[in-house]
Amino acid sequence: MDNSGTSIPDTIAVFDTTLRDGEQSPGAALNIDEKLEIARVLEDMGVDVIEAGFPISSPGDFRAVQRISQEIRNCTICGLTRANRLDIDSAAEALQSAKRPRIHTGLGVSDVHIEYKLRTTREGALEQGVDAVKYAKKFVEDVQYYAEDAGRADPEYLYRVLEAVINAGATVVNIPDTTGYTSPGEFGALIRGIVDNVSNIHRATVAVHCHNDLGMATANTLAGVRNGARQVEVTVNGIGERAGNTSLEEVVMAIKTRRDLFDLETRIDARRIYPVSRLVSQLTGIPVQPNKAIVGANAFAHSSGIHQDGVLKERTTYEIINPHDVGVPDSEIILSARSGRHGLRHRLAELGYALDDGQFEKVYQRFLKVADKKKTVDTRDLEAIVADEVQMFFEETYHLEHVQVSCGNYSIPTATVRIRGPNGEIFCDADHGTGPVDAIYRAINRVIGEPNELIEFSIQAVTEGIDAVGRVTVRIQADEPVKDNGVERRVFSGRSADTDIVVAAAKAYMFALNRLIAARREAGGTRASE
Amino acid sequence: MDNSGTSIPDTIAVFDTTLRDGEQSPGAALNIDEKLEIARVLEDMGVDVIEAGFPISSPGDFRAVQRISQEIRNCTICGLTRANRLDIDSAAEALQSAKRPRIHTGLGVSDVHIEYKLRTTREGALEQGVDAVKYAKKFVEDVQYYAEDAGRADPEYLYRVLEAVINAGATVVNIPDTTGYTSPGEFGALIRGIVDNVSNIHRATVAVHCHNDLGMATANTLAGVRNGARQVEVTVNGIGERAGNTSLEEVVMAIKTRRDLFDLETRIDARRIYPVSRLVSQLTGIPVQPNKAIVGANAFAHSSGIHQDGVLKERTTYEIINPHDVGVPDSEIILSARSGRHGLRHRLAELGYALDDGQFEKVYQRFLKVADKKKTVDTRDLEAIVADEVQMFFEETYHLEHVQVSCGNYSIPTATVRIRGPNGEIFCDADHGTGPVDAIYRAINRVIGEPNELIEFSIQAVTEGIDAVGRVTVRIQADEPVKDNGVERRVFSGRSADTDIVVAAAKAYMFALNRLIAARREAGGTRASE
Repeated sequence: MDNSGTSIPDTIAVFDTTLRDGEQSPGAALNIDEKLEIARVLEDMGVDVIEAGFPISSPGDFRAVQRISQEIRNCTICGLTRANRLDIDSAAEALQSAKRPRIHTGLGVSDVHIEYKLRTTREGALEQGVDAVKYAKKFVEDVQYYAEDAGRADPEYLYRVLEAVINAGATVVNIPDTTGYTSPGEFGALIRGIVDNVSNIHRATVAVHCHNDLGMATANTLAGVRNGARQVEVTVNGIGERAGNTSLEEVVMAIKTRRDLFDLETRIDARRIYPVSRLVSQLTGIPVQPNKAIVGANAFAHSSGIHQDGVLKERTTYEIINPHDVGVPDSEIILSARSGRHGLRHRLAELGYALDDGQFEKVYQRFLKVADKKKTVDTRDLEAIVADEVQMFFEETYHLEHVQVSCGNYSIPTATVRIRGPNGEIFCDADHGTGPVDAIYRAINRVIGEPNELIEFSIQAVTEGIDAVGRVTVRIQADEPVKDNGVERRVFSGRSADTDIVVAAAKAYMFALNRLIAARREAGGTRASE
Repeated sequence: MDNSGTSIPDTIAVFDTTLRDGEQSPGAALNIDEKLEIARVLEDMGVDVIEAGFPISSPGDFRAVQRISQEIRNCTICGLTRANRLDIDSAAEALQSAKRPRIHTGLGVSDVHIEYKLRTTREGALEQGVDAVKYAKKFVEDVQYYAEDAGRADPEYLYRVLEAVINAGATVVNIPDTTGYTSPGEFGALIRGIVDNVSNIHRATVAVHCHNDLGMATANTLAGVRNGARQVEVTVNGIGERAGNTSLEEVVMAIKTRRDLFDLETRIDARRIYPVSRLVSQLTGIPVQPNKAIVGANAFAHSSGIHQDGVLKERTTYEIINPHDVGVPDSEIILSARSGRHGLRHRLAELGYALDDGQFEKVYQRFLKVADKKKTVDTRDLEAIVADEVQMFFEETYHLEHVQVSCGNYSIPTATVRIRGPNGEIFCDADHGTGPVDAIYRAINRVIGEPNELIEFSIQAVTEGIDAVGRVTVRIQADEPVKDNGVERRVFSGRSADTDIVVAAAKAYMFALNRLIAARREAGGTRASE
């Protein structure tokens, strides 16, 4: 490792942007309570900085940053802005309650960005960046500057910009590989050039922010770290636009597993990696493929055909990460109805769930129902129950009381639903459809009548066996009114788990519809008070 | 690029091991016809080498290598062996009909492998490798040698082994990163050391074979290429044990997109990447996560919240790969019942399906049924129909004629099935269960009675809208008798698509059961004739 010129600490700061860049994944939209829940687990996990949103972009983003600033005390909370006063004012206001607030501002540094997007000159852009940093410093001590499209910038100009913004007070300078097309050699050299050529670089932390379009985000991030970067910008499960951002879990475990190579560490509690991965996947509805590094279902699994493979391979030689070290739970532990409240509470605590009494009771009642049908309840069943009963972060306007359906390949699928409305009134209706789910959704639509379009539907068996609990995820899209009489297409996901997938499908749709209704109510309330 | 010392061609050979290392993914087991279908699309795509299996490991692997050798004429067909005569005899026999056969042999080169796994000395291991190469050369001209655990070997010993096996006739030397823990810098240096220090290296091609445990397989592979490797070993979608192998699509598109950096090319027709990715995902039942580079559903998708993001980002600046260039079909093209045979045939040809008349007629009849229920049929519906009607590579012993079910949250899910047996006899039975799928599977089990365990169940909506076609994938596990009175757990996947997910679930289970029965019949026949 080259340590020449700068004083390099041995700890890498983890900057998590799951709630900002990750949430820009198509269909990943989270509501405020869901964002807060993710922020809480990120805090528990030991993340250094949470980028909580882009406050000026929408009232929802603003309130999410505000709420997370109020409740999360052990992380720096960061809000994104463009390099202008309105954006910075909004971020400063949203971050007001944060114990350690950070404003993240910046603009393009390549000529193509300066000329075509910003329509200014190099000097004009430099000045705009310096002004933004100075303005942000009026509100917070900690200001991070992003040099967009740094890879295509004239290096001498880039160095001059970074020097100027550090002189203006930037505490972190962030070098993104915005398009995800860099190779580790190129990206490492870019960071090395900055570390070697920016005279005052020792007064700031260099951050790297990579995208995975060619599958090299992790390698590029680590090349940045090897060349002097001390903050990594990552998302849980690598979610994000297009092919996503750098995966938190891959970078953290590479640094931990290859300490011989990096001689560095992070503050992340690796045993929280797997539970946090599951929570983010559940709340965003974005699945993790089985062959995903670190957190995929097969990441530590070997082929069942050991007889084929064992001759070439010896398990212990090939498993350098122990699954327990990243928090993969022992799914062999099985509970039954006789385990009782005590046994259930004990197991939930082991799995890292901190439930209040009301939540615990809901989980317990549901646990009894599943145990009654399935006889045994394992770790993954429990995770599904908690996700269903506790992690439902909205107010239920309509409640599905009863659903029944009949279908088959030579019959017309027909469903009947009974729904309790916001004032306790009971609605009952029926409809037919192309399949049982279609029939149910049409029947529900007859009662609730909120226009929307179903854009995604998936079911996974949570556990093995034909009597398994199935988890349904749906995504619906609807036009929402926004400021200035505009309309915005918004996506709401819903999920539910049940041994009957048709019932789970009905509940998941109700979940998404209730979220849509809650969001409309919230938006309406905001406009009235603004 | 350093070209010193060796003559380096400007084309990288693509060695696809989807059918060997990829098929070792838990639950990915493919039957011979499915392997052949994948081999055909790999051939069409322009892959240089297909590693078709490990012939001595099982009769199924042997026959798959044999059949692919007979039918694929434009690729080198490769069979894996350990460094012993029995393995090589088996591979040579399986490869007999291949136009361009290759035997892939080798053994460990690190002291830990030599001492603890091979229980020999460095000299003994070197001799064993040389003997294996010489023996393989008696059967085929093209012999590839793998230096297992090369990263932990004494470099001087590694160079000596490679020199010796090249002198013995090895045409390709394969350097694997078996555990997936290397960084691009280390792995590039390993390859550079080999290229610079093995005196006769110009007489062989250097191959790189990486795993993705820390998310760096693509970067490591490309680091190998930058340092002189001229064969990349990859799998479609990056499937493989644990976190998988290097992704074909990422490496190919990195080389293509960054020609400025690599100044190299492959023979792959990139427009085949997406259809081949879909076929492999369907036949193995291994899903591709939406944020997977190149082939994920979101790989080229930007957030719907453009108003949030557009200010920072301009689409055209950020989309360097055009989705059409990797064969992502235009899903906007919609057919209806009035499109007729001509319209359907035209569209199928555009999508790259070459169907015979019998297959086309089955697809057409099914297309009419879907068009009748859904009114319009788009590209993804068509893909599902073809997968369902044509890509069913086994003989159906039992046929599901009728299924009907009733269920709901306050009723007992009950299913009735009517099934036609192998001799045309009709069975009818019913059962109840914890949900509709459980009820159906129990009713089917009452009729067919093949013991098995359901280990996975998933449903994806193929298209948008509540009347969407759903695709169900199931995986069942059963004990299969093997040679020497042993028992082996084998996994069979089944899939089906229908607008009624309950019907699709029933058909997918029948699909898996029929595969299980066909495999038993096949195994029985083999044993009788052996």
